[in-house]
Amino acid sequence: MGLIREIPDFPKNGILFQDITPLLSNAQAFNVVISHMANSSSEFDYVAGMEARGFIFAASIANQSNRGFIPIRKSGKLPAETHSETYNLEYGADTLEIHKDACAAPSQVLIVDDVLATGGTACAAIRLIEKTGATVQKLVFLLELEELKGRGKILQQFPHMDIESLKKIQ
Amino acid sequence: MGLIREIPDFPKNGILFQDITPLLSNAQAFNVVISHMANSSSEFDYVAGMEARGFIFAASIANQSNRGFIPIRKSGKLPAETHSETYNLEYGADTLEIHKDACAAPSQVLIVDDVLATGGTACAAIRLIEKTGATVQKLVFLLELEELKGRGKILQQFPHMDIESLKKIQ
Repeated sequence: MGLIREIPDFPKNGILFQDITPLLSNAQAFNVVISHMANSSSEFDYVAGMEARGFIFAASIANQSNRGFIPIRKSGKLPAETHSETYNLEYGADTLEIHKDACAAPSQVLIVDDVLATGGTACAAIRLIEKTGATVQKLVFLLELEELKGRGKILQQFPHMDIESLKKIQ
Repeated sequence: MGLIREIPDFPKNGILFQDITPLLSNAQAFNVVISHMANSSSEFDYVAGMEARGFIFAASIANQSNRGFIPIRKSGKLPAETHSETYNLEYGADTLEIHKDACAAPSQVLIVDDVLATGGTACAAIRLIEKTGATVQKLVFLLELEELKGRGKILQQFPHMDIESLKKIQ
């Protein structure tokens, strides 16, 4: 079995879903991926990840790099005061939140997620980090679905953003 | 600020929520916690974690221990064939799922979550792992809310289960 398997018509008809669970359950593959993502930069103070699959990569990278982890969560999940961003995503619309005191003002933050699709989630995450007063140092993804043009969308709004994906899928 | 802060009336009136985000964002504290949880056992092949906060700890432990990570997710999130368990939890009811092919039959699995509350989530997770044909080797939690008696509930259903929590809160 491949480490990333394609599941047709999930979560709805016509979508070819990239299932990363075989990669996650393969100890060696998971370890190589986390090491590669963690080594993609050294200039960050925190690693932020988006609920839920982003947590898997971002928390592991934070731990391996000895950095703090910042959760970016869906609406209503964070208990203290939050900043909020609503955005469009591949299969609908959603709202993300971050704690207002998530990180100290002069910090550099690495944003990590499993997949770069349309870029809506990533742009919302960038705005949330900036609202806390911190700076986004780089974005790192496991997969980039190139036909959805997320990289272009991010660069349109944040022209100098550093974006890395381990594997591009056309 | 403490590493675990109490937020009153979240997610609803009368609940004193234990907010672990200050611990997560403190690099040293997060690292110590993950190392402690990872070293609580060495006899496991996989680390399973429950969506969403469980992913933070379980994936980091899997990476640090060089083991595979298995996501246990909410209903409708896993793309391939799943086993399913519906259970009661502190604030309502929910369904968890695991991929049928998540782990090989003779495997030992460490189940990890942030909080042991009523034990409903943990019991569902144990049943899901067992449905795949694997064995639950141990349960590890960051926090145990003792007044909710989750440990007793787990032991009632799984009498010889090994359960460890790093911090007990009465």
